[in-house]
Amino acid sequence: MPDTEVTFEDIRQAAERIRPIAKRTPVMTSASFDKESGVAAFFKCENFQKGGAFKIRGAANFVLSIPKDQLSKGVVAHSSGNHAQAVAIAAEFVGAPATLVMPEDAPKAKLEGTRARGARIVHYNRFTDSREALSAKIAADTGATIVPPYDHPWTIAGQGTAAKELLEEVPDLDALVVCIGGGGLMSGSSIAAHDLSPKIRMFGVEPELANDTYLSFAAGKRVKIDSPATIADGLRSTSPGELTFPILQKHLEQMLLVSEDEIKAAVRFMIMRLKIVVEPSGAVPAAAVLFKKLPPGVRRVGIILSGGNVDYEQLANL
Amino acid sequence: MPDTEVTFEDIRQAAERIRPIAKRTPVMTSASFDKESGVAAFFKCENFQKGGAFKIRGAANFVLSIPKDQLSKGVVAHSSGNHAQAVAIAAEFVGAPATLVMPEDAPKAKLEGTRARGARIVHYNRFTDSREALSAKIAADTGATIVPPYDHPWTIAGQGTAAKELLEEVPDLDALVVCIGGGGLMSGSSIAAHDLSPKIRMFGVEPELANDTYLSFAAGKRVKIDSPATIADGLRSTSPGELTFPILQKHLEQMLLVSEDEIKAAVRFMIMRLKIVVEPSGAVPAAAVLFKKLPPGVRRVGIILSGGNVDYEQLANL
Repeated sequence: MPDTEVTFEDIRQAAERIRPIAKRTPVMTSASFDKESGVAAFFKCENFQKGGAFKIRGAANFVLSIPKDQLSKGVVAHSSGNHAQAVAIAAEFVGAPATLVMPEDAPKAKLEGTRARGARIVHYNRFTDSREALSAKIAADTGATIVPPYDHPWTIAGQGTAAKELLEEVPDLDALVVCIGGGGLMSGSSIAAHDLSPKIRMFGVEPELANDTYLSFAAGKRVKIDSPATIADGLRSTSPGELTFPILQKHLEQMLLVSEDEIKAAVRFMIMRLKIVVEPSGAVPAAAVLFKKLPPGVRRVGIILSGGNVDYEQLANL
Repeated sequence: MPDTEVTFEDIRQAAERIRPIAKRTPVMTSASFDKESGVAAFFKCENFQKGGAFKIRGAANFVLSIPKDQLSKGVVAHSSGNHAQAVAIAAEFVGAPATLVMPEDAPKAKLEGTRARGARIVHYNRFTDSREALSAKIAADTGATIVPPYDHPWTIAGQGTAAKELLEEVPDLDALVVCIGGGGLMSGSSIAAHDLSPKIRMFGVEPELANDTYLSFAAGKRVKIDSPATIADGLRSTSPGELTFPILQKHLEQMLLVSEDEIKAAVRFMIMRLKIVVEPSGAVPAAAVLFKKLPPGVRRVGIILSGGNVDYEQLANL
């Protein structure tokens, strides 16, 4: 186990490590989004990332950091979808067997994407079963290494490479707006962003229905909520991570919330006006900016569109 | 009126002229598209273009070429949608009044995009009315200049800037695949591509239901068909242009056809796998490559995704 402190140097090394697997995604702008939101927005398009989401950054950094003799026993991970696909891709790349613990009601696109990589899928019921216990049992039985979705320094360092790339390409941002599930993307991005741009203002966004980090900020400690029913399936974690939460507390100016309707409207806006497909979780920070949740004084905003994996039926229902 | 011969120098000048209005669109690649199609594809993303389609290139070049005293009397154009939006944008940019003759059943997204630019819209029934006659009457009444959708050297030169940008970014392509409505994009692109890359193989694609250029190639002369009912609403022209057809005959190796089902499947593939929204017309060349209509020996293929303006209902129905 490495030190629990994640530094910018860890993120820099992660960027080198994951280069053969993860894409450097493009940064998009949109005159119509800027007109509607009143800010200049720069979208880091992780919906175009390999596996359709930023998750490959953390998963690849983690899997490539596992010692070789241990790696041969395989990897196991639990995930509502994007982390599962990412672990499957990273495992396929290194030739290690992968087992993914996924909810029965995960989006079909995410289940199929994972299966297509040759990974074994074990289902669980996300209202009654403990996915952590299931993963732990598989790991104990097989000797496989658990790849944590967010609460590990290797994962956090990998996710931070998204903000590193964005800030290298657009250095003069006032703010960075990122969605929060377990907080891996936001904590890694905070460390990268504040190293490259010490004055940048950091905002985390959650769905109102999945406000565990918002409540934790208010309480000053990690709060656990019931399994949330938000459409943003990637943000259904029930509490921020043990490692990620103190990082978020250190770096974030404020937590913002968006409604389900605002999330749906943002997905539609991205499709109809930007011509890109962003999944509900990925559209959460765009929704916060579009519906003017940011405090005054923010003009140039980086927005990480975290993923684009959405079922066709889900899209049609929007 | 300029000379009817369009040269690469005209396209180079058009590129300079339209720089303040049209975007330089990105080129995307997709591992999953390549796997499925068996070629290496390079997508020129005109769905991200201002106005949502390549049409702004020709419209801007045309409008910016009109002498100032004439321009003050305004511009008029007829279009199923994308050309209308493009003319509206170009007219707004130069501060000239614009009248657009659009079919009653044009996609809502295209009607709204045009109206949002402050242009006046005149409706016609595309099965019973002559849009050419309507435009001509408006031009005669007001002194406005007609902006032709494809059959004019200024328009052709403007559209050719799309292929110029693509070939400058990816010089070593075996082939370029482009959809054909009136043939403006394909003829401009042929001139640009064959100047920059003399050996590149050029393929035009039409829907089976809108095969006027395909039939014209077979007949060796321009053939007129009935108003086609294809889902690819941007490709519903009934014959290739007087100017564009000889250019196509000179440069094209072959005309390819795709079915309505193939077009729909390509739109779905672009959404679900590439995470981008391409309208049916824009997906036509991608469909040809995806369904392996190209002759053998083609490995690196440029594909112009001509536009992304699609109704949400239309998308949901797919």
